[in-house]
Amino acid sequence: MTALDHPVEHRRFYCPLPPAIHPRAEEAEREAIAWMDRIGLWADDRQRRRLVGTNSAEFYARFAPRATDAGLQVAVRWVYWGFIFDDLRCDSGAFSTRPHEFLRMAGVLQRALETPWHPLVADPLVLALQDIGRSMHECATPTQVQRFVHAHRAWLYAVAWQIADHADGRMPDLAEYTTMRSHSAGGAPTIALLEIANGTEVPAAEMDSPAVRALTEMMVLIASWDNDLHSVAKERRDGEARQNIVTVLAHQHGISEDVAVGRARALRDRVMTRFLVLREEVLARPCSPALREYLVCLGHAIRGNIDWAFNVPRYTSVDGSRSAVPAPRAEASWTSGPCDTTADPLPVPATAWWWDEL
Amino acid sequence: MTALDHPVEHRRFYCPLPPAIHPRAEEAEREAIAWMDRIGLWADDRQRRRLVGTNSAEFYARFAPRATDAGLQVAVRWVYWGFIFDDLRCDSGAFSTRPHEFLRMAGVLQRALETPWHPLVADPLVLALQDIGRSMHECATPTQVQRFVHAHRAWLYAVAWQIADHADGRMPDLAEYTTMRSHSAGGAPTIALLEIANGTEVPAAEMDSPAVRALTEMMVLIASWDNDLHSVAKERRDGEARQNIVTVLAHQHGISEDVAVGRARALRDRVMTRFLVLREEVLARPCSPALREYLVCLGHAIRGNIDWAFNVPRYTSVDGSRSAVPAPRAEASWTSGPCDTTADPLPVPATAWWWDEL
Repeated sequence: MTALDHPVEHRRFYCPLPPAIHPRAEEAEREAIAWMDRIGLWADDRQRRRLVGTNSAEFYARFAPRATDAGLQVAVRWVYWGFIFDDLRCDSGAFSTRPHEFLRMAGVLQRALETPWHPLVADPLVLALQDIGRSMHECATPTQVQRFVHAHRAWLYAVAWQIADHADGRMPDLAEYTTMRSHSAGGAPTIALLEIANGTEVPAAEMDSPAVRALTEMMVLIASWDNDLHSVAKERRDGEARQNIVTVLAHQHGISEDVAVGRARALRDRVMTRFLVLREEVLARPCSPALREYLVCLGHAIRGNIDWAFNVPRYTSVDGSRSAVPAPRAEASWTSGPCDTTADPLPVPATAWWWDEL
Repeated sequence: MTALDHPVEHRRFYCPLPPAIHPRAEEAEREAIAWMDRIGLWADDRQRRRLVGTNSAEFYARFAPRATDAGLQVAVRWVYWGFIFDDLRCDSGAFSTRPHEFLRMAGVLQRALETPWHPLVADPLVLALQDIGRSMHECATPTQVQRFVHAHRAWLYAVAWQIADHADGRMPDLAEYTTMRSHSAGGAPTIALLEIANGTEVPAAEMDSPAVRALTEMMVLIASWDNDLHSVAKERRDGEARQNIVTVLAHQHGISEDVAVGRARALRDRVMTRFLVLREEVLARPCSPALREYLVCLGHAIRGNIDWAFNVPRYTSVDGSRSAVPAPRAEASWTSGPCDTTADPLPVPATAWWWDEL
């Protein structure tokens, strides 16, 4: 049975949050593509088409519908950059089977982001990231930049971990996969861009508070698992036998991938439910306008990530470009209620604290 | 020529800062050792003697001479923990040649630190770290804890990188080594404990400002290089052919290790000089009492790290315990001026920004 045979209900998403999109998403896309042309982010036309086909501008415009133009542009550029980095150095490409080399390359790259004013290596991807870093320093506060930098390192660590697992042909269990996947999908740096896009700094006492950290972590895990569900088809099409929430559950419990999709949805919907409850609690407490907007945008991000995935050529077209014939794929759609209403913590100790009194 | 033959002047340290130590260093040691006995941090008497012989309480008492008792105790416990983790899982032990396994183990460990209220794995070292994490939450602000958590991950990333290099028998050049070593010695989490020990939170706008970041980075690199210079003898004694600033420079420039020690000192003294100049500039600006104390403690940390190393059994005794006969070692001592007065940036692009207008 392939992913394409999954009954329709397996690809239904529970997300009782309205869609949103920034009114200048198209301008942001034009500006970012012009930047990529100028800086030479792609090696050839095929890469360019694939990268344009990530719809990165639309993606982030859905996350931050009231962003400043400058902040949105920085976020959009990084998302484009992240996709090409992912394609060339993480999921595929020379580093995807060489974790040691990845650690070195990404270690230097991370340092380059931290000190974007001085070129460290003659690597176009690193230089492009430094360009983004400089733009970020122009429109963001030092604290916002540091939050992004820390999240960026967490992502690179998890990618190295994922590559090491892949190199060893190792399938983790759900507990380990959840910890790794929470960072390997790049959710944390993507979300650290929210307050930069919005142009308002969330005070440290709020951002670092357990409740806000838990909400951020939940949003990131939901989106990571949703991406797993969306990209199962793409990964099979590309002949990639990746770890994802479906293969992990199937392997751990000795069940079919069809059954595993249902289990994954149940886990995911329980986190979604807890996210909505806790967010409502936090929004009912006194909080700064910046935090309020951040929390609203976490919801936009969960919803926007799904809306984006439904139509993005990266997942829906055979070669990832807008012009290609759409690939056959299972229908994905919405559902009005969670498929599991259990209010207890997930059977994943690393996430249990989200259900504590926060 | 071995490290023990180095002429005396090669081990002289330029550090025009007064020594300091917390008046209750001995009480802190007794309390921490009782904690380690209680929690079972060591497997046997030999490990216990070695760990006591790290003088970790004295070490941190030198860094934070005006710390609160509770904050100092958390810091001291983590330093002890860091040394046994280093011995068992980083520099030596089963993980020291298996970077893939290290990434997984340390990835789970890092997550356990982030969520210390729920046990993740039945690993005594992880459980001990979670115990420290819970104590930290009792005496530190959420922002202080998060700063420590981020620094902790940066350290683990760099250790994985170092282990990968070691597994490949690869010797990096100075530029790459500096970036890696700045984190692999554990300086960032050690320094993130300063404000926790002091019991005063440095406001985010100050802590994340370029000047304070640069000063923190400089302090960490100086201490890392100083540790390299101190531990050359120990590493040779233990038959470890490690990367350190001396072997890296000798390899890169095709020079003897004797000459390389002199070059390393020159690089180190230039950073020390820049640190002192920039710190004076920052202290002359308006700054919070918490930042002022933090910056003073950065100086204590550079000086204290050297004072500690001069007499710690870990470096000076054959088996690392207090009772063993001291190992023969080169004399180390002080020097009143830098051995290189060049005021330009180091020939290491990743550090060039420390000499920018900050």
